[in-house]
Amino acid sequence: MGYFDAASAAPLHPIARQALQASLDEGWADPARLYREGRRARVLLDAAREAAAEAVGCRPDELAFTSSGTRAVHSGIAGALAGRRRVGRHLIVSAVEHSSVLHSAELLEASGGAVTQVPVDRAGRVKPSAYGEALRADTALACLQSANHEVGTEQPVAEVAEVCRAAGVPLLVDAAQSLGWGPVDGDWSLLTASAHKWGGPSGVGLLVVRKGVRFAPQGPADERESGRAAGFENIPAIVAAAASLRAVRAEAAAEAVRLRELTERIRARVPQLVPDVEVVGDPVRRLPGVVTFSCLYVDGEALLHELDREGFSVSSGSSCTSSTLTPSHVLRAMGVLSEGNVRVSLPAGVTEEDVERFLTVLPGAVATVREKLGAPGSEAVVREADALVVDSLGKRCPIPVIELAKVIGDVPVGGLVRVLSDDEAARLDIPAWCEMRGQEYVGEEPADKGTAYLIRRVS
Amino acid sequence: MGYFDAASAAPLHPIARQALQASLDEGWADPARLYREGRRARVLLDAAREAAAEAVGCRPDELAFTSSGTRAVHSGIAGALAGRRRVGRHLIVSAVEHSSVLHSAELLEASGGAVTQVPVDRAGRVKPSAYGEALRADTALACLQSANHEVGTEQPVAEVAEVCRAAGVPLLVDAAQSLGWGPVDGDWSLLTASAHKWGGPSGVGLLVVRKGVRFAPQGPADERESGRAAGFENIPAIVAAAASLRAVRAEAAAEAVRLRELTERIRARVPQLVPDVEVVGDPVRRLPGVVTFSCLYVDGEALLHELDREGFSVSSGSSCTSSTLTPSHVLRAMGVLSEGNVRVSLPAGVTEEDVERFLTVLPGAVATVREKLGAPGSEAVVREADALVVDSLGKRCPIPVIELAKVIGDVPVGGLVRVLSDDEAARLDIPAWCEMRGQEYVGEEPADKGTAYLIRRVS
Repeated sequence: MGYFDAASAAPLHPIARQALQASLDEGWADPARLYREGRRARVLLDAAREAAAEAVGCRPDELAFTSSGTRAVHSGIAGALAGRRRVGRHLIVSAVEHSSVLHSAELLEASGGAVTQVPVDRAGRVKPSAYGEALRADTALACLQSANHEVGTEQPVAEVAEVCRAAGVPLLVDAAQSLGWGPVDGDWSLLTASAHKWGGPSGVGLLVVRKGVRFAPQGPADERESGRAAGFENIPAIVAAAASLRAVRAEAAAEAVRLRELTERIRARVPQLVPDVEVVGDPVRRLPGVVTFSCLYVDGEALLHELDREGFSVSSGSSCTSSTLTPSHVLRAMGVLSEGNVRVSLPAGVTEEDVERFLTVLPGAVATVREKLGAPGSEAVVREADALVVDSLGKRCPIPVIELAKVIGDVPVGGLVRVLSDDEAARLDIPAWCEMRGQEYVGEEPADKGTAYLIRRVS
Repeated sequence: MGYFDAASAAPLHPIARQALQASLDEGWADPARLYREGRRARVLLDAAREAAAEAVGCRPDELAFTSSGTRAVHSGIAGALAGRRRVGRHLIVSAVEHSSVLHSAELLEASGGAVTQVPVDRAGRVKPSAYGEALRADTALACLQSANHEVGTEQPVAEVAEVCRAAGVPLLVDAAQSLGWGPVDGDWSLLTASAHKWGGPSGVGLLVVRKGVRFAPQGPADERESGRAAGFENIPAIVAAAASLRAVRAEAAAEAVRLRELTERIRARVPQLVPDVEVVGDPVRRLPGVVTFSCLYVDGEALLHELDREGFSVSSGSSCTSSTLTPSHVLRAMGVLSEGNVRVSLPAGVTEEDVERFLTVLPGAVATVREKLGAPGSEAVVREADALVVDSLGKRCPIPVIELAKVIGDVPVGGLVRVLSDDEAARLDIPAWCEMRGQEYVGEEPADKGTAYLIRRVS
């Protein structure tokens, strides 16, 4: 099977399936009831909570089951902000958080709160000191993912937690991508996760709120799950989620070594097999199963389609914006190439053969897409007094970069190329191309339509 | 099996189980993805949406799957109120709505909005004209359940929808208890439901918003389910929910006749078998499987415990307040006795033998509880100038009513009894006892501690 999108959703773990089926008979009743069916459901729910809490490294009464990881993030941020409303309404997030975190931040801003986005380096990693600098007297909460969902880079959570703790600010860790691999280190205050990322069923998230953290649940009152997750508990799914977390943890150490070797192979070989590729994300401090690369002169969606025809399922850009044409906010924050972006995230149990076959298929798929994009006409090129002008208005990435690459040799070393583009992705991809090609990115300026990007040939 | 609490949660329908298991293999991937696993998931999701929409009687694009019925109500009310924010912030609800509706109303009030509660008659039914009278120029939304969850009374939804429609106010119908039996009649604007009430799995609710209804989803943005239900879709559960809705609908007409006969039997026989019982709820316009009665001089929780020992699972009072000592808001709004309250809600497929066995066991269970409550000491009785005073301070219901019943014969016809009680349930149960016993309830007045309830002996 060529399903390489485990960071989006993992197939159900066999243990999860067993647990789900077993608890369909025992776990359907209301656990708040005192009769036998209710008591049985309560026993299952309590046991699942204990197992999940042990895997997280928290007390059972600190852990609530939500209906998804997204819901855990939404409820966790809203509750933590409200709990510290008297301190202020300032929120700190990294620039590469999951959309559920960033959308929560947008909601805060829309209602008059303030948000600071902490930048990342080219590997997608934040500096703990940057969190320290972002802290203010009115900071209610800081958020940091344990590892990035698009490029796999691990974040310095323990160090950031220490910085926040010293300032008395709670840190919420979105552990969606990493919890299956191990507990989150450090003295964090809140934690969220999503069961279908570790082979549990859909419909289960975790929200952990450490004792002593001020927390005021938002929305209409509801007495279930300590008031932190409204609605009837989905006990069979919760039981399956806890069982699969325990199961993947038992296999995690060995499987991490195996997947890390396979992704290392992809990291090393893709640039050898495919010309004009940039592998992105931290090469060392990263999730075992994730590797992301971008291919110059390639349309990401077309490449996904080619790979799907060959039996491989991968994602491109940010999963939550795949239906839009906006380049991934993660790649943009990293300042790396977004065009032709591919995220490979290997599921547990993937075979070496599948990975080898992917490496065999990829070069042809990239070549096919590049060929289809073809050579654009040169009628769009005009020589001005000081620069060669490429008019890419109305053309979607990667066309502007392709046209730039075609004409850069037509100007002398020291000469300028001006690319006119109204595609937002060009703002990211033209500087990234310059970086990859050793050319100088001079800057951008507004043009009649869209933006003019200035490039100086230096080699 | 003596599980008689289907109005709380129904065991999984065999069809739901089959559908769930089949779609665990096909429905785990992200339906927003374009690769084969995502496309398969999308096909399943689309088919489930069409099936559910057909059962509801709406367009598929009007229907979103939420993570629970409670969540559907919370999101539906919040979105409808926000969509008509410019009209005003007035909400109309019936006094007997589910707690998810009433808690949404409390949240609105807490943020400065206004709520009108429409009263019900002794059968638990609203008058359509009362909705008409409650409408104001700033009314943003009205809510009415299709049928009551505690007593089974059906509400005049179509008539209320007409009244609201004429005023240009949308009506949200909480159809949690009735959707398995059939579509909701009338020109309603929004509808909510919960799959585990009709034998679907936990973790699936429905939120229907008719085209043309102003709706502004609240909370952080999320592109799934038309922006109306954040978080990764739980497709296997959604498929199972739709399949079981279709299955129970196919059996609904015949099963309704059968269950109605069984509940009719309970309605008729319980007052013959057990002394001092009041059957509550509309005797005709009611759900097929629900029958509710209250037993004088009985503690509801103790009776549930006795019945559980005999193998019967029933609920008492409001399901959402069963863990508190507050009497059910539904019974209070109806003005009927709340003490010793039992709701029997028969699951599909229940046998006549189970019901007969329940009727055999019930009288002994009630007698046991009454015996345990015993005869309270008469030292609390003081004869004042104008009345016999019963000091029930510090005693929980049904003790105040038991003490009242014990002394009423000690005053002459026309004489007064004054019951001192600090249990909130007395406010409901003492007038209800008077109604049942043909005595005159004179009224209440504040006492040193608690409240004094005045009763005149008239027979």
